[in-house]
Amino acid sequence: MDEFALIKRYFTRRTPRSPHVVLGIGDDAAVLDIPAGMQLAVSVDTLVSGVHFPTSTEPYDIGYKALAVNLSDMAAMGAEPFAATLALTLPQADEAWLQRFSGGFFDLAARYHVQLIGGDTTCGPLSITVQIHGLLPQGAALLRSGARPDDAIYVTGTLGDAGLGLLAAQNKMTLPDPQRALDKLNRPEPRVLEGMALRGIAGSAIDVSDGLLADLGHILKASGAGARLNLDALPLSPDVRACDEEQAHAIALSAGDDYELCFTVPSSKEAALKRAFETFSCACTRVGVIEREPGLRCVRADGSLYVPKASGYDHFR
Amino acid sequence: MDEFALIKRYFTRRTPRSPHVVLGIGDDAAVLDIPAGMQLAVSVDTLVSGVHFPTSTEPYDIGYKALAVNLSDMAAMGAEPFAATLALTLPQADEAWLQRFSGGFFDLAARYHVQLIGGDTTCGPLSITVQIHGLLPQGAALLRSGARPDDAIYVTGTLGDAGLGLLAAQNKMTLPDPQRALDKLNRPEPRVLEGMALRGIAGSAIDVSDGLLADLGHILKASGAGARLNLDALPLSPDVRACDEEQAHAIALSAGDDYELCFTVPSSKEAALKRAFETFSCACTRVGVIEREPGLRCVRADGSLYVPKASGYDHFR
Repeated sequence: MDEFALIKRYFTRRTPRSPHVVLGIGDDAAVLDIPAGMQLAVSVDTLVSGVHFPTSTEPYDIGYKALAVNLSDMAAMGAEPFAATLALTLPQADEAWLQRFSGGFFDLAARYHVQLIGGDTTCGPLSITVQIHGLLPQGAALLRSGARPDDAIYVTGTLGDAGLGLLAAQNKMTLPDPQRALDKLNRPEPRVLEGMALRGIAGSAIDVSDGLLADLGHILKASGAGARLNLDALPLSPDVRACDEEQAHAIALSAGDDYELCFTVPSSKEAALKRAFETFSCACTRVGVIEREPGLRCVRADGSLYVPKASGYDHFR
Repeated sequence: MDEFALIKRYFTRRTPRSPHVVLGIGDDAAVLDIPAGMQLAVSVDTLVSGVHFPTSTEPYDIGYKALAVNLSDMAAMGAEPFAATLALTLPQADEAWLQRFSGGFFDLAARYHVQLIGGDTTCGPLSITVQIHGLLPQGAALLRSGARPDDAIYVTGTLGDAGLGLLAAQNKMTLPDPQRALDKLNRPEPRVLEGMALRGIAGSAIDVSDGLLADLGHILKASGAGARLNLDALPLSPDVRACDEEQAHAIALSAGDDYELCFTVPSSKEAALKRAFETFSCACTRVGVIEREPGLRCVRADGSLYVPKASGYDHFR
């Protein structure tokens, strides 16, 4: 099977259709129509085998996650995703692998009505780059720079589960029931609907891909502000709570890959936030407050300061 | 220097600014404004070290070419590029390498006013994925599917020079003066302005990245047509002419990486084509005609059929 037949077989027949896609796969470029009054949000993320996922990861999960991390970026902007490109570098054209990979990709694409509009298939060490395209009403983007002193800081879901999953996948930790943590690592749920619901409510937002400290740090830097985090308010799953306290806090604050949203809300919008999340099954927890003083302070219930050891993932350290 | 400082240092300060970019590098996504009446063309291409360029390639040329091949896709659609993302996977954060790579990327970006709006920097085997974004008047895209019987087939520039350059780079051929062929291989000139000028003139278009036979073949398949190519009409540089005739034809028809445009023009538009190309320094040569009968026939001046041996590059063969 040659390159073109392979691409056609696994990547053109199953994709959902978006009304904003004028021309999809098969020409030199795709063509999109952006409705009047809307803006286009675009984001790109690469997953490298052995770096972003263990080499033993199921191809289904790789395909799922390559799209999920990009959907999460749309969620963090409040954008509605509708189209994606896929640049896939593969050591060889392994049909069984492609079938499972495309299964994970398209199962998630179908849930969010995201059309695959183009891509490139090349031969080389396994790596996947997805670019996602989403729509935003004019001026509605949730930026990192909009946090203001006294805004409340919220996070969705629970923190640290993907970090636990990674430790379990690497056999560095034994969990009584590792499946929940592994699912969170391999098939994170992008908070797309939640992100869209935060338009007009959140002052700033980011997705937690590198750990809460690092990602909240980006909000603080972009907003020229500081923050106080209440360590005991961090939403932890039973799995993370089962760790000793020091480890639980370190994982919840610094492990990456949770793909929850972290956002800030001015007090005038907290009632609207509560109403918006009534329709979602995912939790939304107040974990701290934006302060004028620069820096990020983690405070225990007794008022003492907690000084975290790690502060997020850096690819070149 | 950590990942974020590195990105900032080499990839945020030099980029041109596009009026259609509302938000560039630095948030979870970029935000674009598409003017009313315009459509967005998007295309993505990956270059893998050792596959798409020899590992000895100058970092400047890698950066240049990663953008050039994408600009060429915009040219083939008749789109005006204005923004790009860059997903860069690097074995290590080598500052000297990054400085040269970004130099090649931004020198070309500046010439075509393309803003770098986002990206991802990851650690792994060297590979570069660029996605390009361009504007098209509503319905003006040059598609592969628009070739009709009796349309003339044209190519820009000359064919086979990049193929010669690759042979020279691999020490498989000795050229008296290899620089011209190497320049064509490493710094192809995307035919962006020419592609835009073909709006309303060309019935179909593609860029020649995999060799004329393969790429014209895509037009024929998409258009449900065949073609006759006049072998002696192929535009060849003095370097390619210096090869023996069999080799010259093989290289001109089947070597990839030329990034010239191949397009079809109905007879009613040939005068307009001639006028359009009067302002360009690049040649535009009539090489054949679209025919109703499927298949691609290469004909010598004496009327005999030439049967090519290779038919383009396939990544997985």
